[in-house]
Amino acid sequence: MPCGARACVVVNRDRPIGVFDSGIGGLTVAHALMSALPHERIVYFGDTARLPYGTKSSATVAGYAAQITDFLLKRDVKMLVVACNTMAAVALPVVTNLSPVPVVDVLDAGARAAAASSRSRRIGVLATLTTVSSGAYERAIGAHAPDARVVSQACPLFAPLVEEGWLDHPVTELTAREYLRPVLAQGVDTLVLGCTHYPLLKPLLARLAGPATTLVDSAETTALRVAELLTAQGLRCESKAEPAHEYYVTDLPQRFRAVGALCLGRPLPEVHLVHW
Amino acid sequence: MPCGARACVVVNRDRPIGVFDSGIGGLTVAHALMSALPHERIVYFGDTARLPYGTKSSATVAGYAAQITDFLLKRDVKMLVVACNTMAAVALPVVTNLSPVPVVDVLDAGARAAAASSRSRRIGVLATLTTVSSGAYERAIGAHAPDARVVSQACPLFAPLVEEGWLDHPVTELTAREYLRPVLAQGVDTLVLGCTHYPLLKPLLARLAGPATTLVDSAETTALRVAELLTAQGLRCESKAEPAHEYYVTDLPQRFRAVGALCLGRPLPEVHLVHW
Repeated sequence: MPCGARACVVVNRDRPIGVFDSGIGGLTVAHALMSALPHERIVYFGDTARLPYGTKSSATVAGYAAQITDFLLKRDVKMLVVACNTMAAVALPVVTNLSPVPVVDVLDAGARAAAASSRSRRIGVLATLTTVSSGAYERAIGAHAPDARVVSQACPLFAPLVEEGWLDHPVTELTAREYLRPVLAQGVDTLVLGCTHYPLLKPLLARLAGPATTLVDSAETTALRVAELLTAQGLRCESKAEPAHEYYVTDLPQRFRAVGALCLGRPLPEVHLVHW
Repeated sequence: MPCGARACVVVNRDRPIGVFDSGIGGLTVAHALMSALPHERIVYFGDTARLPYGTKSSATVAGYAAQITDFLLKRDVKMLVVACNTMAAVALPVVTNLSPVPVVDVLDAGARAAAASSRSRRIGVLATLTTVSSGAYERAIGAHAPDARVVSQACPLFAPLVEEGWLDHPVTELTAREYLRPVLAQGVDTLVLGCTHYPLLKPLLARLAGPATTLVDSAETTALRVAELLTAQGLRCESKAEPAHEYYVTDLPQRFRAVGALCLGRPLPEVHLVHW
C-alpha cells in the first residue's frame, strides 16, 4: 500500500461509508449508493429530532453538522457523504476541518453535473431557503462553469408536501407551477433538484418543465462521485458479502423504518435511536 | 394576603408571565394577552432552532418542554402559558410537575370554548400530526362536554403555508378544502384551530367552513383564561406602566423580530438568542 500523506491514516477498505442528512431525504442518496456500490457498507445518520434544517441559521446548522460528523467518525467510517444540501451549503468547511477521511457532498456533485449538462449556460436551482440564501450553488456551479448563469428558487413547501405523501397531488402541481414559473422564464435548460426530498417529485417536475429541460438528481451524481473517489484512493471494499447497513436517528425510529423501507425499496433492520 | 398552600410561595404580582411556543406561532397568544391584559409583562420563549414540534415524538417534545420551563422559571415568572398545542398535548404533565406557579395551556382553553359553543355536539379539531395522534383534544373536550363527538384532522401543511406567507393563496385554499372536507362531512358546527399558526388562516377557513360554523381561536380563549386565573388568585399586576416585554429564541432572532412585529402589530425590542 502506497504511503502518501493521506494513506498514512491506516485505512481498512472494509470500513463503512458514513452518510448523513437532517432526516429521511438522504436515503435517496443512500439508495443511489447501494445501487452503484452494492457491497459497500453504509452507516446512515438522520437528525429527525431537529429537522428541518432548511429554515435554520447557518450557525445552528453548522453546530449540528459538527456533532453528526463526530458521531460518524467514532463509527470508524472511511468516507463521509453529506447527503443534505443545506448542510453542504453552509457547513461543509466544518465537516472537512473535522474529518481525516474524504468528504463528498451532494451540492458539489449536483453542481458538477449541471455544469456538464447545460447547453444554454442557464441553470436553475430548486432548494431550501437556507441553501438559496447561502449562494452556495452559485459558487459551486461557478467553479465548474464560470460562464453559466444560475437562477435559484427557494421551494420551502416541497419538503412538507413530500412528507405528506402528496407526490402527484393537485396542490403539489399548483405549488410547483408557482415555483417553476420565474425559473423557466429565464430560459434555463437544466434544473438542479437541490434538496434530497425533491427527487421524489421528479416525475411531476419533469412533466411541468418539459422534455427540453434536464433534471439533475444529485443523489445519482453523488453516488457516481463516491464511486470515482473510492476507486481513485484505493478505498473500494474487498468484501463481496451482502453488507449490514446501520441506521441512526434522533427521533421516531419506527416512522423512519417504515418510510425508509419505501424509499429504499427494501426492509430496514433495526433503526437505532440516539439521545442528544 | 391569605396564606393557602399555593400562596405560601411568595409571589410578587408584578412578576412577568412566561409564554412559550416552538417558534413564532405563540405570538398570536402573546398578542391576545397584550390586548386583554395591557399592563402585564410577558417573557416569551420561541424554540426556533428545533421547530417544528408537530412532527416529533412525545418524548422529544416533553424533553424540550422541560428545558424551556426551567429557563422561564429562572426568569421568575408568576404564571406559565403553554402557547403551543403540541406541547400542551403531549408534555403538559412535565410542565405542571416542574412548575410551582399556575400553568395555563392553549389546548384546554380551546377545548373549554368549543364545549361551550357547540350546539350539534360535533366538534372538529384541526391540528398537527403529533397533537392529533395524542388524542389530547378528545380527552380535553370530553372532560368539559362528555356527550360531544370530536372529529380530528391533521393538517401538516398549514404551518409551512403560513410560514411561506400564502395566507389566501390558491394552493392554501385547495389544501384547506382537502383537509376540511372529511371534517365538515361529519356535521360539525364548531372548528377548533388547534395550532397557534392557524389563526392566521382564519379568514380563509371561515369562508370555506361557512357562516354556520364557529371557529374557536385558542389564542383569544387562552387570554381570557389567563385573566380569570390571575384575578382569582390575586396575581393581577399592580403597575400601570407600559410593560417591557422580553423575547428569547434559540435561532434567527432577526427573522423572529421582523415577523414578530407583523404578528403583534408593534415593533419588538431586542430579541435575545439562547444557545442550547
